[in-house]
Amino acid sequence: MPTYRLTIEYEGTRYSGWQAQGNTPKTIQGHLARAASQVAGDVDVGGAGRTDAGVHAAGQVAHLRIKKAIDPQLLVRKVNDLLPHDICVLRAARVGDAFHARHDAVSRVYLYQIATRRTAFAKSFVWWIKDRLDANAMGDAAARLAGRHDFSAFTDKRLQEDESRVVVVERAGIAVADDLILFRIEASHFLWKMVRKLVAFLVEVGRGEATGDDLAARLHRKAQAFQPSAPPSGLFLEAILYRGETFERPLLPIVPVERR
Amino acid sequence: MPTYRLTIEYEGTRYSGWQAQGNTPKTIQGHLARAASQVAGDVDVGGAGRTDAGVHAAGQVAHLRIKKAIDPQLLVRKVNDLLPHDICVLRAARVGDAFHARHDAVSRVYLYQIATRRTAFAKSFVWWIKDRLDANAMGDAAARLAGRHDFSAFTDKRLQEDESRVVVVERAGIAVADDLILFRIEASHFLWKMVRKLVAFLVEVGRGEATGDDLAARLHRKAQAFQPSAPPSGLFLEAILYRGETFERPLLPIVPVERR
Repeated sequence: MPTYRLTIEYEGTRYSGWQAQGNTPKTIQGHLARAASQVAGDVDVGGAGRTDAGVHAAGQVAHLRIKKAIDPQLLVRKVNDLLPHDICVLRAARVGDAFHARHDAVSRVYLYQIATRRTAFAKSFVWWIKDRLDANAMGDAAARLAGRHDFSAFTDKRLQEDESRVVVVERAGIAVADDLILFRIEASHFLWKMVRKLVAFLVEVGRGEATGDDLAARLHRKAQAFQPSAPPSGLFLEAILYRGETFERPLLPIVPVERR
Repeated sequence: MPTYRLTIEYEGTRYSGWQAQGNTPKTIQGHLARAASQVAGDVDVGGAGRTDAGVHAAGQVAHLRIKKAIDPQLLVRKVNDLLPHDICVLRAARVGDAFHARHDAVSRVYLYQIATRRTAFAKSFVWWIKDRLDANAMGDAAARLAGRHDFSAFTDKRLQEDESRVVVVERAGIAVADDLILFRIEASHFLWKMVRKLVAFLVEVGRGEATGDDLAARLHRKAQAFQPSAPPSGLFLEAILYRGETFERPLLPIVPVERR
């Protein structure tokens, strides 16, 4: 079947997440599949990353299989006309029929926005922390994440004994942009809630209540589980990478806080 | 009574406007008065500009009169803790007891954001226009607004025969910033819906369906009323100026559209 690679942007605030599941009414995937089927009849839509309720995407990727080929530009325009305002197909490209958004992805990039001041306009896109945070300490700790680690302490998923919780983190870092502290992490895959738990831990580091050494000490299988999770509002699935692709976008806000 | 000048930022999306009126439940003024009275007992709150439902403010000004003086910083912190996330007091300063936010204001600045592409994240802060717009033509037309004109054609208010519809426009201009076309206008006062009707007209100019001469021809008392209004989502009350103050902020987006 003719297959397209879609790049999608959405604000997750109003939705119960990406994944269509049983009776869950408000999913991004559900809206996309409905819109695409109005344009092209029977469709199959599968996303690369299963973002949770409230989590946003600047570059989610999905495969879309349809019965009869259609011009990609026209497809984008028609589908966007049917989507709610907070979901947007950025582009579509015809790809090989075997393309599978999730199985073929080799890397995922997540970005988290922490606001260091109150914002009336960007509240849905940040975690606002009132306490003063030491961004340098957070950056030093974040750098410890690179490499191959067992992230058992940073997931809520109860895994089977033989399931792997090992993740290869390509890059992780912190940047400061005006009134935002940004955390970005790139890895082959992620465990459930991993990014939000890492952010919650890094905020502890920023407050001086934990150190980079504490973080390193948690990066093994038997480590004590870390309970807190950062709220979904600050989290963006920024990009999905496939074989041969690299990610070079500078670490800047996706949704900046308002100018004052 | 001790009087404070408050500068306030809010997203108007969820509210029925600034002004508390009879049974209208969701007003910015109502929220502010409630929060302030929890902090300081009996209060009197009056705003400089009566923004309509859905209109935002980056620099609304209000006077707040309370019985017993309080440190302005502490006042800001306490009031903000009680306000909903989309209303924020930016600063407070003790002023003379006679200060009246509306009567003393000598100039108002409004900014309107037109988006030239679909945005999933900034939808509440723009008017998205699909058609290609000629920003130069819009800028030339906007420049014709400066000076003293009768804006009868650009208001919905049915005024009495002897009421003045003459407004002195200090400055009006257009700027392009990435995927936004910005319109800013500064004047002593504004008629009801005046900015939104001017924006709707400038968009006609941008589409090539009207000219700057057409606009100039409408700037007198007997001109035909212009019906369309731009949606409130794109409109910000940017600043209120008082005697001796000038406004020099560069014409840039208040809420930019997301980075791609």
